Amino acid sequence: MNADKIPDIIIGRLPIYLRALQRLAEKGTQTTSSQELGEMIGISAAQIRKDISQFGEFGKQGTGYSIPFLIERLQTILKVNRVWDVIIVGMGDIGHGLARYNGFGNRGFQVTMLFDNDPDKVGQTINDLEVFSISGMTEKIKHNKVKIAIVSVPAAVAQTVTDQLVKAGVKAILNYAPIHLNVPKDVQVQHIDPATHLQRMTYYL
Amino acid sequence: MNADKIPDIIIGRLPIYLRALQRLAEKGTQTTSSQELGEMIGISAAQIRKDISQFGEFGKQGTGYSIPFLIERLQTILKVNRVWDVIIVGMGDIGHGLARYNGFGNRGFQVTMLFDNDPDKVGQTINDLEVFSISGMTEKIKHNKVKIAIVSVPAAVAQTVTDQLVKAGVKAILNYAPIHLNVPKDVQVQHIDPATHLQRMTYYL
Repeated sequence: MNADKIPDIIIGRLPIYLRALQRLAEKGTQTTSSQELGEMIGISAAQIRKDISQFGEFGKQGTGYSIPFLIERLQTILKVNRVWDVIIVGMGDIGHGLARYNGFGNRGFQVTMLFDNDPDKVGQTINDLEVFSISGMTEKIKHNKVKIAIVSVPAAVAQTVTDQLVKAGVKAILNYAPIHLNVPKDVQVQHIDPATHLQRMTYYL
Repeated sequence: MNADKIPDIIIGRLPIYLRALQRLAEKGTQTTSSQELGEMIGISAAQIRKDISQFGEFGKQGTGYSIPFLIERLQTILKVNRVWDVIIVGMGDIGHGLARYNGFGNRGFQVTMLFDNDPDKVGQTINDLEVFSISGMTEKIKHNKVKIAIVSVPAAVAQTVTDQLVKAGVKAILNYAPIHLNVPKDVQVQHIDPATHLQRMTYYL
């Protein structure tokens, strides 16, 4: 199948496969099976085989998938075989935590700029990065051609900040504010919503 | 289909449907279609119809789904037609942010207890809740029969804290630490992993 035509629902599962494969690789494992992956991530082996087969032949019957090969292929498809600049807007608790987060390494992202509109926070340094004023944000985004932003501002201003990001050329937004953001069709939004994750578990209680 | 046999992958989509339906309900909308829902959440209309049809007949050809009826049914299936107590362990940036988060209301959860092991934080009040010492955590969890915990401690201690939670009877853990948590089969874990969400978007850049 042409990579341009992969359904969104499959693309959404690939980062989960990639994370599981990287976890196995860190342990020094060289090959895995759809069964093993399925048990790690709670997706059926048949679904995993079907998803992965869309990108070509990765495994042979009986020998399983080559982990380094599959990691490389998934990273290429997801375009994380490079490092993307990411900015964080909103240096409240969550933004501050994300600025110091050490889970982006080896995943294709680096946080390069921080923004807030609180004069007390502007000029502070968090994890070796200076906090800039939102007033100069558009210019800095355009100048550095940043495409990815994390929005961790209060819900009341999240849409306004999003509009500024979109105008500056940002095409992918990770939203921590508990509201729905309206964006043009060519801009992606992912919503970090702890309640949705909790609701996935209550069914089993 | 018997509700006990719903595949995990479908259960994982139901909270996303529920959130979209609640968003429509807040706007006063009474009915919707699989097409409208699909456009809101990026899942195909056919998939949504197939998933929802597993729980019975909710819509009629041409009239669409009744939003209040479908919300009630999904809340019942996901067991969020009640309010679950949730505790947060780790009052760093992320835990502090979650203690003050206002996105749990009307979703089936309330934060009831906060824990940290830093003597400077124990005894503080965040959002009207006192921060308790982790040393008394097991007892408090057992006494209050808490089943759900959010883990927002540093990665280095996340597994130790998880072991304590499991021992105390917690059955569902929302993990913000950037590591994989090992738990028994009867304990659910959801991992809030910003890098995975970012990787879902880079494909489209």
